[in-house]
Amino acid sequence: MIQAAAKRLRGKARRTPLLSSPFLDEVAGRRVFVKPECLQHTGSFKFRGAWSAVSALPEDVRAKGVIAFSSGNHAQGVAYAAREHGVPSVIIMPSDAPKLKINNTRALGAEVVLYDRAHEDRDAIGAKLAAERGLTLIKPFDEPQVIAGQGTTGLEIAEDAAALGVENTDVLICCGGGGLTSGIALALEAKAPTLRPRPVEPVGFDDVARSLKSGQIEHNTQLTGNICDAVISPQPGKITFPIMYRLCGPGLLVTEEDAKRAMAAAFSRLKLVLEPGGAVALAAALYHGDKIEGDTVIAVASGGNVDAEMFRTALAEYGDGA
Amino acid sequence: MIQAAAKRLRGKARRTPLLSSPFLDEVAGRRVFVKPECLQHTGSFKFRGAWSAVSALPEDVRAKGVIAFSSGNHAQGVAYAAREHGVPSVIIMPSDAPKLKINNTRALGAEVVLYDRAHEDRDAIGAKLAAERGLTLIKPFDEPQVIAGQGTTGLEIAEDAAALGVENTDVLICCGGGGLTSGIALALEAKAPTLRPRPVEPVGFDDVARSLKSGQIEHNTQLTGNICDAVISPQPGKITFPIMYRLCGPGLLVTEEDAKRAMAAAFSRLKLVLEPGGAVALAAALYHGDKIEGDTVIAVASGGNVDAEMFRTALAEYGDGA
Repeated sequence: MIQAAAKRLRGKARRTPLLSSPFLDEVAGRRVFVKPECLQHTGSFKFRGAWSAVSALPEDVRAKGVIAFSSGNHAQGVAYAAREHGVPSVIIMPSDAPKLKINNTRALGAEVVLYDRAHEDRDAIGAKLAAERGLTLIKPFDEPQVIAGQGTTGLEIAEDAAALGVENTDVLICCGGGGLTSGIALALEAKAPTLRPRPVEPVGFDDVARSLKSGQIEHNTQLTGNICDAVISPQPGKITFPIMYRLCGPGLLVTEEDAKRAMAAAFSRLKLVLEPGGAVALAAALYHGDKIEGDTVIAVASGGNVDAEMFRTALAEYGDGA
Repeated sequence: MIQAAAKRLRGKARRTPLLSSPFLDEVAGRRVFVKPECLQHTGSFKFRGAWSAVSALPEDVRAKGVIAFSSGNHAQGVAYAAREHGVPSVIIMPSDAPKLKINNTRALGAEVVLYDRAHEDRDAIGAKLAAERGLTLIKPFDEPQVIAGQGTTGLEIAEDAAALGVENTDVLICCGGGGLTSGIALALEAKAPTLRPRPVEPVGFDDVARSLKSGQIEHNTQLTGNICDAVISPQPGKITFPIMYRLCGPGLLVTEEDAKRAMAAAFSRLKLVLEPGGAVALAAALYHGDKIEGDTVIAVASGGNVDAEMFRTALAEYGDGA
């Protein structure tokens, strides 16, 4: 399925490289390679899964349109994938989502339907709209075609690692519901079995790390109050968790300060814009090296959709240093 | 020579893509493609020319080492190219150059020799060192192998434009001494003759635009006092000017405000970090569309070596807008 998704994504998704900098190698004490999915269409890896899912639909089903619940990167990925397929999309967002995200999603061609978090039932609104118009729901992570799309990231990592002679190496992945992590894990299992996928999460929002430890799905006790919002979800998925449990090494945790510092490092050394949640894997690679094995590490930088104010804060605090 | 340089650069320089965003297309009123040389090793296209020149030296000459005068991107390019070849490099910098640039150049393995701008003769210091140690001078732009190296950027543009079906299009290039512009111009002449190279400079530092108009080398009356320092040099080169005069369309000029606004646009829409001088071509593409022909434009984003304070200023002034 991942290879079939890669075929459908060819010429549509960007083929991102592995970037590096001698300065980052020095900070980490080992070679660091960064997979910059912030350069992907719509600024995050989410476009891959969205394109994979939308393109996999039968033509007559797709023509009726798609629907998604998201205030973040998944919304933009689905909107853009639908637009490029010439089909309508409806994105359901909380009415208190940032204006910028609402506007960007609209500008990508989606119909944005706002709901009141406190008084309205998101799922009911979605179900009603889907039934009325025959829209297909594109889930953010617990959906095979979405996982297959995210897994194309892993095929590219396997290919580039082989070209660089990189083996027996941890691949650190920013992890929310586990779509990207499980997709990459499956791709590496098939194509680069000596590379070990490991999820990275913010301290205090470590549902995946705890689930991997206990062997069953664990929940976060809180869902807000951390700048790494892009990688926070209630719990790992029913489909993604068993894959991660079978294939992933132990989870890693980073603080908000680690994430901002990694944003400054990516700014200064790679010329990349990362959002806090998209920087957690790089943060683990740079500042938690004692928990990593081998003389090389690969970190997936999953997205760059950060507003100017947050980015300025990270630079103000961590400046030009790495 | 450009194709030979491309062969020597294969697997050493990064093969940068053409990036785009529907948001930038809307601002510009036409399709915009950006060649992100900020993602090149050492954060600018200068690595290409430096690698080309260092790798073209006879082995016994190269082994003695290389020397360059630069406080900016050329210094880092030469230092890194020399280090990767396993040969010494000496970079001569003014003692009042920013500490960060001095430290970065040293960290890339160069011996940095500082001189007092007011009381010492840079060229005499360089000549003495070169003679004593048998070092080869790597000029920043007016040197055939450097131009050939920068020209590899043009080969990649030609290849990607062909794949996209892009023809009859202006290629806007951030222009200082003209090494990048003349190199790209030669590559396009051979490989994509319907693409028209055009230099972009800051208002008030328009030596190349005026030289192209008058048909002879014109000088800047000032060399400081503009944030786009990376693209300011006294005059076009003796080798680069005739090439640009034969092949380039009219020059374009942008203000410092345009450059900062383009930095914010690249941040928000492409997730790229650009320095002011590296943003002038994109600024022309976005905000001076009345001077551009065709339904598409290609802008080379030549570098991203900007300090955190300047970047924060650009974001503070132009925020998340494009």
